Amino acid sequence: MGRSFKLSVPASSANIGPGYDVLGIGLALFLTLEVSIDPKNAALSNDDRNNCKLSYTPESDGYATVPLASDENLITRTALYVLRCSGIRSFPSGTQILVHNPIPLGRGLGSSGAAVVAGVMLANEVGQLHFSKQRMLDYCLMIERHPDNITAAMMGGFVGSFLRDLTPQEVERREIPLAEVLPEPSGGEDTGLVPPLPPTDIGRHVKYNWNDKIKCIAIIPDFELSTSDSRGVLPQAYTTKDLVFNLQRLAVLTTALTLDPPNADLIYPAMQDRVHQPYRKTLIPGLTDILSSVTPQTHPGLLGICLSGAGPTILALATDNFEDIAQEIINRFSKKDVTCTWRLLALAHDGAQVSHSS
Amino acid sequence: MGRSFKLSVPASSANIGPGYDVLGIGLALFLTLEVSIDPKNAALSNDDRNNCKLSYTPESDGYATVPLASDENLITRTALYVLRCSGIRSFPSGTQILVHNPIPLGRGLGSSGAAVVAGVMLANEVGQLHFSKQRMLDYCLMIERHPDNITAAMMGGFVGSFLRDLTPQEVERREIPLAEVLPEPSGGEDTGLVPPLPPTDIGRHVKYNWNDKIKCIAIIPDFELSTSDSRGVLPQAYTTKDLVFNLQRLAVLTTALTLDPPNADLIYPAMQDRVHQPYRKTLIPGLTDILSSVTPQTHPGLLGICLSGAGPTILALATDNFEDIAQEIINRFSKKDVTCTWRLLALAHDGAQVSHSS
Repeated sequence: MGRSFKLSVPASSANIGPGYDVLGIGLALFLTLEVSIDPKNAALSNDDRNNCKLSYTPESDGYATVPLASDENLITRTALYVLRCSGIRSFPSGTQILVHNPIPLGRGLGSSGAAVVAGVMLANEVGQLHFSKQRMLDYCLMIERHPDNITAAMMGGFVGSFLRDLTPQEVERREIPLAEVLPEPSGGEDTGLVPPLPPTDIGRHVKYNWNDKIKCIAIIPDFELSTSDSRGVLPQAYTTKDLVFNLQRLAVLTTALTLDPPNADLIYPAMQDRVHQPYRKTLIPGLTDILSSVTPQTHPGLLGICLSGAGPTILALATDNFEDIAQEIINRFSKKDVTCTWRLLALAHDGAQVSHSS
Repeated sequence: MGRSFKLSVPASSANIGPGYDVLGIGLALFLTLEVSIDPKNAALSNDDRNNCKLSYTPESDGYATVPLASDENLITRTALYVLRCSGIRSFPSGTQILVHNPIPLGRGLGSSGAAVVAGVMLANEVGQLHFSKQRMLDYCLMIERHPDNITAAMMGGFVGSFLRDLTPQEVERREIPLAEVLPEPSGGEDTGLVPPLPPTDIGRHVKYNWNDKIKCIAIIPDFELSTSDSRGVLPQAYTTKDLVFNLQRLAVLTTALTLDPPNADLIYPAMQDRVHQPYRKTLIPGLTDILSSVTPQTHPGLLGICLSGAGPTILALATDNFEDIAQEIINRFSKKDVTCTWRLLALAHDGAQVSHSS
């Protein structure tokens, strides 16, 4: 007899104004994997050397371009790394995975973080590893060193996180190990190496009590920004003034978003940032205009505006007037010849979930 | 008939690990002012050109060296600035003030912040200005631009704060105005100028729900550090890595200190700092040793250790074992020939208070 299960992992918005590389919000827009494992279907999955037949729904973002070989696709490649840490070389015979991905790629909504989380959970299920979410975070953080999207996707809700300092022994195996333990994306043989287990409890996080009157409006431009391009425009050093500017606002923002009623006079200035947004305006036409002109005074109900992750998506927090706020931002983008879609998103409070068919 | 009242303003600890210039904790150690205003006593206070007879209890820290002329003493000088903003040139005839100050000067426990807050409240009372605490903060922040100690002393509890951006019109009057509107400490005549009113709502803050199981241990070395000396050793710029290090820990710490039970695995690493403590070790013998060697593993009950403000006082947060923790830190200081006292302090949840005699 085979078995089957379904995984869902939320999109996420990271940074959130002053919280560069720190804050994340899980958003109710879910990457899902329908997985079945049935040795009778082994012949079907024999097109992959790791026993895995992977497919995407046609409605998935990136449907035409995402690699389907299990050692090239980010989800299954991550799963193979986790399995091999436990001495398991491949997927169980007859593994079939159908991915549905509504999270737009490269827009700052955590699509790659969701893929890494999905990959680790996939390995946990197919390998019956019985890891806790906290332990699965360790594996995620070996692949993706920025904990903001990862923690939000795994744990859900509104979270702040950091990586603890590793001990000298742990530091020796800190390198992102995917390339060491898996063939390069261009192909190659299984090296046969068993990668070292990740240190335990790499990530530390807290979940804040988000006030559910606050909704997330995502305004999504129709172009992609790679995280590495987006990091490339950032400076090498910051003045004490800019550093303190962000520290002060970050300390206030996390708690301000828990208070009731939400106070725009507190939240709007606390969502200002001097660490990444000012440098990314060159990559995102209209950003400066939007951040300075759309305010709680011009649009009642608006609480604050920031880049979602590295952009180009704009995240607006609001209690009301969602369509007006979205339309105003879309109009300002259109003056720069950027077209957009928008979504009103609730928080995904529970993060990544697995459900087994009975 | 005269009138009398009493003011009390708490000591405070600022920075708190990663929260440089951001976080503050009001501590139950109070600067107090006993004030009486009786025109019949005018002759007694005629030794001061501003109608004020100021004295200190002999037990007050700095008793022998604090200036007593009302335009030189930080408390009354601040009060005169606030009064003059409202067009009042001096204290009411027959003002007598007895100050009791148990807050050690120049040790990082907010003695000057408390003096500024006391001065503004003093003016509010003697001038019957009827300002809210939020408005009094504006006056405080015109004199002392760092909101951490000021906000903690005024509002009490565990607070995070920032100064909002001033508008171009407001920026023109941003300069600290004491020197413009009062004679220099060395003496001189009242210039007669009415200083401009401060902008409103300069400071924004939130108060965190401190877990009252957590107590503050202050280990106080027997030497003073001026804030300006202590700022002088800090670098001009910070790497992104150090900036993110502090942002991540700050975001976690403020909420970690509200959780129950307190979790040392979360709090101890979240109290680490790379913005000011590493640079101040040259000014505070033994600091590096203390921060790296006294841990929750060596001392159960300990949650975290940091500099209090700019130091030299060490602040340890703990739920138990207070005397052992204090003694361990005192012993490590004594190896560097620094002698210390220590105090176990509860939070001052209500901040600055005024009480009127019936």
